[in-house]
Amino acid sequence: MKVDGKPMRTIWVEADGTVGIIDQTKLPHRFETRKLQSLADAAHAIKSMQVRGAPLIGAAAAYGVALALREDASDANLEHACVALAATRPTAINLKWALDEMAAAVRNRPRAERVAAAYTRAAEICEEDVGINQGIGRHGLGLIEAVAIRKRPGEPVNVLTHCNAGWLATVDGGTALAPVYAAHDKGIAMHVFVDETRPRNQGAALTAWELLHHGVPHTVIADNAGGHLMQHGQVDLCIVGADRVTAQGDVANKIGTYLKALAAQDNGVPFYIGLPSPTIDFALGDGLAEIPIEERGADEVTHITGATTDDQIVTVRLTPKESRAANYGFDVTPARLVTALITERGVIEANRTALAAAFPERAARRPAVASR
Amino acid sequence: MKVDGKPMRTIWVEADGTVGIIDQTKLPHRFETRKLQSLADAAHAIKSMQVRGAPLIGAAAAYGVALALREDASDANLEHACVALAATRPTAINLKWALDEMAAAVRNRPRAERVAAAYTRAAEICEEDVGINQGIGRHGLGLIEAVAIRKRPGEPVNVLTHCNAGWLATVDGGTALAPVYAAHDKGIAMHVFVDETRPRNQGAALTAWELLHHGVPHTVIADNAGGHLMQHGQVDLCIVGADRVTAQGDVANKIGTYLKALAAQDNGVPFYIGLPSPTIDFALGDGLAEIPIEERGADEVTHITGATTDDQIVTVRLTPKESRAANYGFDVTPARLVTALITERGVIEANRTALAAAFPERAARRPAVASR
Repeated sequence: MKVDGKPMRTIWVEADGTVGIIDQTKLPHRFETRKLQSLADAAHAIKSMQVRGAPLIGAAAAYGVALALREDASDANLEHACVALAATRPTAINLKWALDEMAAAVRNRPRAERVAAAYTRAAEICEEDVGINQGIGRHGLGLIEAVAIRKRPGEPVNVLTHCNAGWLATVDGGTALAPVYAAHDKGIAMHVFVDETRPRNQGAALTAWELLHHGVPHTVIADNAGGHLMQHGQVDLCIVGADRVTAQGDVANKIGTYLKALAAQDNGVPFYIGLPSPTIDFALGDGLAEIPIEERGADEVTHITGATTDDQIVTVRLTPKESRAANYGFDVTPARLVTALITERGVIEANRTALAAAFPERAARRPAVASR
Repeated sequence: MKVDGKPMRTIWVEADGTVGIIDQTKLPHRFETRKLQSLADAAHAIKSMQVRGAPLIGAAAAYGVALALREDASDANLEHACVALAATRPTAINLKWALDEMAAAVRNRPRAERVAAAYTRAAEICEEDVGINQGIGRHGLGLIEAVAIRKRPGEPVNVLTHCNAGWLATVDGGTALAPVYAAHDKGIAMHVFVDETRPRNQGAALTAWELLHHGVPHTVIADNAGGHLMQHGQVDLCIVGADRVTAQGDVANKIGTYLKALAAQDNGVPFYIGLPSPTIDFALGDGLAEIPIEERGADEVTHITGATTDDQIVTVRLTPKESRAANYGFDVTPARLVTALITERGVIEANRTALAAAFPERAARRPAVASR
């Protein structure tokens, strides 16, 4: 993607082998990059959410292993690096997967080859992510083109999105936003309604920032506003990301996704999930019953961070000091509310039959679970 | 209601004839009262939202006329006061109603009697509001008792509310929260999920504050969380307020209400509107088509105000400076999603027949409109 005209990824290797990242905790107020020099730097970047988003966490963890091996390529240090990185975001499935991939790539090699092998495998993990997102973009583009063809000249296709499933959450290209970028880059007039996405405000802070810098017209709205917009025909389609999708097509995603899916259904607006297919967990069936919902710190609800007029970044309290708050990270949107899943393998209906047909090699591996 | 054990209203007359209010712009961070000494003070209090909420705005405007007449009881000044106060919040229907009532109460009296007549009528307007809210509380209490009877000992009735339709929005007692206070005061274990209600955060700032100070257990949540709670059986009933209700029972209320009504329907949770019956506008039929939705300043979305750790009240920016934002004040919840309207005249189904039967004197006055 582009930042003010210059192509950029969210993670890259510098000439000296250090790893560059954008410090996303400073967005949208400051654009700052960081150089990760060591395992400790990489672990800190993931834990403090300088990098976030499942695919980017995986990529950062992969490079974290490479940085660790550069310090000490022993088996003990490989093991130490994997344990340390896995502990940074315990619920991130991509993180675990990337660490397993890295260990497999270096474990059986002589020490002298391990560093090079680690950088190579980390780079491959990044390229795989970029390739998947290009696939999501290509398949989602067709859905947007079908809407664009009905528009008057210059009239944009209006997409509503929730949270950040854009290029900042990936190595490049984004997942839910990949079709939007594909359409924009092809010259289709696009406009995105960006849910601010309380409590962490990833929409207002990250999605708005990346759309702005890539030049995609957009409007930030309160999370409360999407239903009203859909009632008044101002949204052509919704596209959101997913943290996990079950074998029957139920979608766990950022808290509030379910409310938008209800409004989409009530107003005949298509509701799409843009996701890399590894997000589909064929071991799960009923998302509402089987996906545990992380409860996060209440301070994300009681407090918020922003920039003052003199560009100080400040955290302020919003609620009475003595009032209790609760912070649920995700909700589950039942498959019945999902129009389709946009994956790198095509646009797939959100039901067990269609998912099994699209991913026979994965669905078949778990017959006991599939019969639930 | 009570503030830390002491009974209190949102507006009162001091011994010297000045009018006391709570400066609600400082809540929940600071509890400060103000003395309104003049028409200008009253107009400023309404315009700057030191007082807000339809019933309280009406009461403040009424006392604003009294304060104006104390300065100058002439016809010209009465006219001037009504014009000045009407301009403070042009879309507030109660404001216009209260000013008409005040003008009618003093216009035909000799100047010497006007000040006393104005204070008397303003006090009556306040008492009428309190009486209406007691009625809403009484009728809503029955609905809560029916839930409480199914609970185990000590297990609370869980109510979800949106925005602030509590005592801070009225002279006393609240509208949507009147049933909650009636149940709590009767000894029923209550717990309220408080939507923070972006962008102005009336839930996090005002509803949480008043529940806290009256001693009602509550939890502040992001607006995104209500659907998830209802999916998991954590909400027994929703009660919200209304800015306007049509003859067929469509409800205009704070933006985001519609999303909660959809979630309530999807999960079989009763969705009630607590409202004073003057909020019903029998001249309107289809709320979605006929109620214009106010678009407010985008800065309420791009910025937010809170308290720093050293209790400074600070406003911070949340979005990129160059990103556009839009701010819709209200949405319309179709009658099909409303279980019933809790009014001072009883619990009424949200449809044309039931509303006309409950308010024959008002429904009959507009036969041409009622046939729409």
